[in-house]
Amino acid sequence: MKKKTRPARKRRRNIGSVPGTMTYTGVRTEEDFSIEVIDYDRENCTHTVFDNVEKVLPFCTGNKTTWINVNGLRNVKAIETLGKHLNWHPLVLEDIVDTYQRPKIDEFEDYLFVVFKMLYYQEDRLVIEHLSLVMGQGYVVTFQEEPQQDVFDDLRKRIIENRGRVRNEKSDYLLFILLDAVTDHYFLVAETLGEKIEDIEDQLFEGGDKADLTRDILLLKKETLRMKRSVFPAREIVSRIEKTDSDLISAHIENFYRDLYDHAIQVVEYIEMYREMIMSLMEMYMSTISNRMNNIMKVLTVIATIFIPLTFIAGVYGMNFDNMPELHGKYSYFILMGVMLLIFIGMLLYFKRKKWL
Amino acid sequence: MKKKTRPARKRRRNIGSVPGTMTYTGVRTEEDFSIEVIDYDRENCTHTVFDNVEKVLPFCTGNKTTWINVNGLRNVKAIETLGKHLNWHPLVLEDIVDTYQRPKIDEFEDYLFVVFKMLYYQEDRLVIEHLSLVMGQGYVVTFQEEPQQDVFDDLRKRIIENRGRVRNEKSDYLLFILLDAVTDHYFLVAETLGEKIEDIEDQLFEGGDKADLTRDILLLKKETLRMKRSVFPAREIVSRIEKTDSDLISAHIENFYRDLYDHAIQVVEYIEMYREMIMSLMEMYMSTISNRMNNIMKVLTVIATIFIPLTFIAGVYGMNFDNMPELHGKYSYFILMGVMLLIFIGMLLYFKRKKWL
Amino acid sequence: MKKKTRPARKRRRNIGSVPGTMTYTGVRTEEDFSIEVIDYDRENCTHTVFDNVEKVLPFCTGNKTTWINVNGLRNVKAIETLGKHLNWHPLVLEDIVDTYQRPKIDEFEDYLFVVFKMLYYQEDRLVIEHLSLVMGQGYVVTFQEEPQQDVFDDLRKRIIENRGRVRNEKSDYLLFILLDAVTDHYFLVAETLGEKIEDIEDQLFEGGDKADLTRDILLLKKETLRMKRSVFPAREIVSRIEKTDSDLISAHIENFYRDLYDHAIQVVEYIEMYREMIMSLMEMYMSTISNRMNNIMKVLTVIATIFIPLTFIAGVYGMNFDNMPELHGKYSYFILMGVMLLIFIGMLLYFKRKKWL
Amino acid sequence: MKKKTRPARKRRRNIGSVPGTMTYTGVRTEEDFSIEVIDYDRENCTHTVFDNVEKVLPFCTGNKTTWINVNGLRNVKAIETLGKHLNWHPLVLEDIVDTYQRPKIDEFEDYLFVVFKMLYYQEDRLVIEHLSLVMGQGYVVTFQEEPQQDVFDDLRKRIIENRGRVRNEKSDYLLFILLDAVTDHYFLVAETLGEKIEDIEDQLFEGGDKADLTRDILLLKKETLRMKRSVFPAREIVSRIEKTDSDLISAHIENFYRDLYDHAIQVVEYIEMYREMIMSLMEMYMSTISNRMNNIMKVLTVIATIFIPLTFIAGVYGMNFDNMPELHGKYSYFILMGVMLLIFIGMLLYFKRKKWL
Amino acid sequence: MKKKTRPARKRRRNIGSVPGTMTYTGVRTEEDFSIEVIDYDRENCTHTVFDNVEKVLPFCTGNKTTWINVNGLRNVKAIETLGKHLNWHPLVLEDIVDTYQRPKIDEFEDYLFVVFKMLYYQEDRLVIEHLSLVMGQGYVVTFQEEPQQDVFDDLRKRIIENRGRVRNEKSDYLLFILLDAVTDHYFLVAETLGEKIEDIEDQLFEGGDKADLTRDILLLKKETLRMKRSVFPAREIVSRIEKTDSDLISAHIENFYRDLYDHAIQVVEYIEMYREMIMSLMEMYMSTISNRMNNIMKVLTVIATIFIPLTFIAGVYGMNFDNMPELHGKYSYFILMGVMLLIFIGMLLYFKRKKWL
Repeated sequence: MKKKTRPARKRRRNIGSVPGTMTYTGVRTEEDFSIEVIDYDRENCTHTVFDNVEKVLPFCTGNKTTWINVNGLRNVKAIETLGKHLNWHPLVLEDIVDTYQRPKIDEFEDYLFVVFKMLYYQEDRLVIEHLSLVMGQGYVVTFQEEPQQDVFDDLRKRIIENRGRVRNEKSDYLLFILLDAVTDHYFLVAETLGEKIEDIEDQLFEGGDKADLTRDILLLKKETLRMKRSVFPAREIVSRIEKTDSDLISAHIENFYRDLYDHAIQVVEYIEMYREMIMSLMEMYMSTISNRMNNIMKVLTVIATIFIPLTFIAGVYGMNFDNMPELHGKYSYFILMGVMLLIFIGMLLYFKRKKWL
Repeated sequence: MKKKTRPARKRRRNIGSVPGTMTYTGVRTEEDFSIEVIDYDRENCTHTVFDNVEKVLPFCTGNKTTWINVNGLRNVKAIETLGKHLNWHPLVLEDIVDTYQRPKIDEFEDYLFVVFKMLYYQEDRLVIEHLSLVMGQGYVVTFQEEPQQDVFDDLRKRIIENRGRVRNEKSDYLLFILLDAVTDHYFLVAETLGEKIEDIEDQLFEGGDKADLTRDILLLKKETLRMKRSVFPAREIVSRIEKTDSDLISAHIENFYRDLYDHAIQVVEYIEMYREMIMSLMEMYMSTISNRMNNIMKVLTVIATIFIPLTFIAGVYGMNFDNMPELHGKYSYFILMGVMLLIFIGMLLYFKRKKWL
Repeated sequence: MKKKTRPARKRRRNIGSVPGTMTYTGVRTEEDFSIEVIDYDRENCTHTVFDNVEKVLPFCTGNKTTWINVNGLRNVKAIETLGKHLNWHPLVLEDIVDTYQRPKIDEFEDYLFVVFKMLYYQEDRLVIEHLSLVMGQGYVVTFQEEPQQDVFDDLRKRIIENRGRVRNEKSDYLLFILLDAVTDHYFLVAETLGEKIEDIEDQLFEGGDKADLTRDILLLKKETLRMKRSVFPAREIVSRIEKTDSDLISAHIENFYRDLYDHAIQVVEYIEMYREMIMSLMEMYMSTISNRMNNIMKVLTVIATIFIPLTFIAGVYGMNFDNMPELHGKYSYFILMGVMLLIFIGMLLYFKRKKWL
Repeated sequence: MKKKTRPARKRRRNIGSVPGTMTYTGVRTEEDFSIEVIDYDRENCTHTVFDNVEKVLPFCTGNKTTWINVNGLRNVKAIETLGKHLNWHPLVLEDIVDTYQRPKIDEFEDYLFVVFKMLYYQEDRLVIEHLSLVMGQGYVVTFQEEPQQDVFDDLRKRIIENRGRVRNEKSDYLLFILLDAVTDHYFLVAETLGEKIEDIEDQLFEGGDKADLTRDILLLKKETLRMKRSVFPAREIVSRIEKTDSDLISAHIENFYRDLYDHAIQVVEYIEMYREMIMSLMEMYMSTISNRMNNIMKVLTVIATIFIPLTFIAGVYGMNFDNMPELHGKYSYFILMGVMLLIFIGMLLYFKRKKWL
Repeated sequence: MKKKTRPARKRRRNIGSVPGTMTYTGVRTEEDFSIEVIDYDRENCTHTVFDNVEKVLPFCTGNKTTWINVNGLRNVKAIETLGKHLNWHPLVLEDIVDTYQRPKIDEFEDYLFVVFKMLYYQEDRLVIEHLSLVMGQGYVVTFQEEPQQDVFDDLRKRIIENRGRVRNEKSDYLLFILLDAVTDHYFLVAETLGEKIEDIEDQLFEGGDKADLTRDILLLKKETLRMKRSVFPAREIVSRIEKTDSDLISAHIENFYRDLYDHAIQVVEYIEMYREMIMSLMEMYMSTISNRMNNIMKVLTVIATIFIPLTFIAGVYGMNFDNMPELHGKYSYFILMGVMLLIFIGMLLYFKRKKWL
């Protein structure tokens, strides 16, 4: 119980530097860097992985739709090269590698810049990963900290195997299914949270005396706060995309974004509900402690209330006065023992009636 | 008390699938499937139940108003057939069979898509059932998980027996009375909730010591949270229908939707009120526990405070010193007993005055 | 304390019936029914009471302003006759006799329909009565459950005796003074609530140990919740009348409605303030209980801490060892008694310093 | 502690009277009535006090700017005379003498009517005084309940001695400095409140056991609630004046109102902050009580836990069995005493380690 | 623990003075006053420090961009001279030296006036410093209470060494990087707050019994309240600058202000999150105290429950009745001791099973 479960503090925002300076603020230390390119249209689809940004640049300008997935944010140089090639604003580049950037959307004339957070549980700890997406005419570029394959894995297959309508659509639909995949994962995380809450409920009502749940509840509450901070802005962002009058999003795609918006609201509602339930948990726990204390006090009171008067009586007849007539009766002792027994039984009945036993 | 009252967890949203994929996410396992068609105009009315979707399709295109009530969401195929015949968007079809979809309204050019939740208590447990309604020119199609007859039963009779104005109106009025019937049931559920709260109140004030109400209150709170999540969006949905500028809703029907809106607000107010009352309940319960502890402590304190000093005195005269003059007086023992009695009575009076007895 | 103070449950909304069906949902069982008509203009004023609705109908169409006050909602038939004569919407008629209808305003072309709640205390219980008002060109019709004379009594006299400006104004001013009279009564109710809160405060701080205030506070809280639900919508309703662009309200009357709006806000503020105070009361009560427990514990601790060690000492010299040299000194007993006295005094001083005595 | 600190209840609004009826609802009983007139322009300034309203009327129509300060609201007749002379609406006159009127602003074509509350502490009690201001072309009339000189004293001198820009400006600037003076006083009141909170904090942490702070905290909370109700509307009122398009406020004065608006927001923020701190205080107090109880329990537990077993041992060797070999050893008594000492010391060490001592 | 950690009260707003009067309301007593001027364009840059305001005036009117940094607000005269030279409104001058002024923005035709608060921790205490910025065509003037070099230090170097784009931009960009530097410091402060919270958490769960954390938590809460009051308005201010239609902010700079707005929101979110966590802390602390009390009570109950009955039995056989047959058996004593041992062990097992040991 003495082990710190808190992750190492690391909140080094790039304070004091020139605005537009690209500084990686994440916790990854590996130099892993790879760029995955999926280039497709209705008929064809190529899938290649590069480790050099120069080879990627030609893809951006074809007629096909291109998904460029950059894994690893430490290679600031490469990201800058890509960004300059595609004419992005310096502040966009800064935010791509700043893992403390909160979720947001910035609309530019030629492209949309979206910051999202990917959430998943890893070894029972909530991990929040920074994800940036830039969508322009004919391309979507995604930036992740780590090659966390599972979130986009299914989606990749869907494009290559030409399932669904993705191959018939443009980059606006690609952006939608990317965001949709991330949002779907929010549900998994919310579910895990729900299960954790129910586990604590079970412990509360069945686990008996042993555990101090204060810490568990506190940790759960902090997890919910972090989750909320990452997920809540998603709602606003999706709504902004749906209602944008940018030419980048074509009208017939808006239905999909409206659907995504519904999902975002639903996750937010789940988290709000869990927040309320955690607050209740704490109250419940307090009342459980009080109930337990009540029971302890009852035992003490019953024992003390029964035996203290009896002990007093025994004390009386242990006194050494010369003249204590009762002591000399032949059956005095047995009579006294009888009286004590009656007192004992009477008190038991009294407590029974008071429901203390 | 060890039995788990929690329903089996089942939250399998269709994560990772292509948007527009129809996946049934409910808990029903029966293959029951039936389609009920009520086709009516001012003069005539037919009522038929089919188990094959093909036979239903011709009804959609007559001059009459048609209510198609689909029971059972597992037959995804049939629902798709119907949807395609009526030209619905794939996302609509996905939401019809996704029982986790929250209440919402989507307006399309030719039809309105409404998701509602039906609420009822079954064996003291709150059941929330998924209900989708699609209203187009000349038809309303409703989709339910289970043939839960009672909600729409009365309404069915009303159409067949030509009570009220329904036979003189179009599908916009039909949608209204369907939503109205569901909303009316919300009141029943709210009432049951109110009664449960009053039961706990009674237990709190009259039921004495025995029960630990913590769990009951927690369960009630969770029920209210679930209710809230299902009912609150209804308000917004009805308001959207009332204010729509779609041609599907004719102007003279808006008064009815305004009335429905009033009802929706009223349910929401009830639930909010019950929420506050449940929060108070917990507080009350805590104060009741504290009061009880107080009473236990008083008993203990009175007994201990009276007898501990007396026992001490008895102990003193039980000592074996050679020279203890008091022991040898003829009436010493009786005098001491008198003194003890005075102490006893004095203390009783003291506690009486302090209102501890 | 075992008597149930809760009124009989009766929440039978007319669930499942055709919209527009008039069903009386109140609790009155008397068949009392009367219609009071005050017909006035600048010069003349007549005041008649009828028990037959037919005789009332001619009044509605004169040049004078007519106030028709219907007492008793059980006579659904008569109300329907009146409503049809004046061309009201069926939903209006339904709401007039539905006592569960929340306060609201509906604007129609020819008339305004307002639902308000009249509040008063009867034998220490808060009574909430349903009041509907329909204002058209030249008339205001009011519907009450019971001939609760006092609210409108003063107003009736004012019209007959031609006090104030009412005889010089039209039905829009009449509606204003009717709503004003009801709102004025809200203040009386709020005042009574304030006094009840102060009574509990007094009991809390001066009433000593005896009472368990939990229940009283809970009842007060529920009363406030009910009050809030009845009074809060009034604010919105009055504001809607003030800002209406209906021809029914003439411009120079708007100042009066603005004033009424001020009053409505003020009542709402009072109730909100009382709500907060009740919440504080509960907290205060909890802290008072804790304080009391503290005091009980102190007494117990002082007594036990002083006498337990002394009893031990006495116990030691009550042992029967052969060789206990102290026992045989001539003054041993007196010395020991002195030592015990010193211990006793020392402890008293210690507790004095700790402020436990 | 038994003395009631609550002021006498007096909430007699003029319920049931004709709207526009002037009824003084304050608590003053003195018949004091005086009218102070300051008439000024850039060059000249006269300052006169009258007790008759007739003499004041001519001032209203000069070219100069006139400040008429009416002290005492009981003289309803005089106020009516003044109001009629200046053509004010009857509802304005009603509100001037209705001390329960909440702060508000009413804009009329020729004048602005503002209700404010003056706050000050008198003998440690918060006094809230009704202040009405009517600003028209060339005049500002203020109505106070009592000649509370200090609030406007400084301001009066400033006009007479021609300090600041007031003599160069019109009545719109005069209104500003009047409201500014009142708002400045809000800060003094907020400060006093802040000091009271800090006093309770000190008592909480340093004052030891003696005091029951529950009541003090409750009184503070009620004071804050009253303060809030009086001060919060000021923000809205000033904002309305700043943004008015009435000709009465000239454009170059708006900067001053914007500044006043800033001040109003600041006071509101202070009060909100104090409210939160008072809520914390209650929590802190509860935790302090619990901590204290903990300490009392520790003392009791230590004493009881040490001596109860020792007393038992002494009891054993006080038994009168014939055959108890230990009793007859020569050093038995001393050995036992040693053992008891060891137990005593051992327990002390144990509690030391548990940090109970 | 008796030391007051509260800073000396000093809230002397300039109450009662003429609006526009410059009164320094801060706590600095040093007469330090210096003016630092950085005058730059794309090619050149000069950096000079003056102690006389007259020498500074010529800089304001060059073609270059000028940053004038005034340290020390006591020299009201000099500030007035500067302000009059640049044609500022008297209320602006008043607010520059009024350290109680809350953060705000005022837009004038020729200049923007911004009030911000600089936050930093000094010896573990939160210091809030008043900072005013006036931005006009070609200049930004900043006013600080103290030459707190670190906040702007890095920025100063950046201008002189021509890093970043600042030398290529106008005063609108200069204002941005100044506000950006202050906002960056908010993150540092929020981080420190976060660490303090985690320290208390650690103490709560690991630090054992000794500390009373009530006071620490209260101080933390007050710190958060002060922080909130200083930081929250920043969000609104930056948003106002971004959306202004003043010519002073050129369009291509707006992206930077949007970025700054993101940062401001992020800080606000942090502080809100910490506020919630502090509220949880208090709850946790209460539950920890209750848990501890539970444990103390358990020890007491176990000891008392075991030994009180045993002591009673010993008492019985210490009585002096003539006829107590048990006393005379040869092995009576040993049998009784065995029985007592069995009772002792039985009780231990019982408590073991109840998990009290």
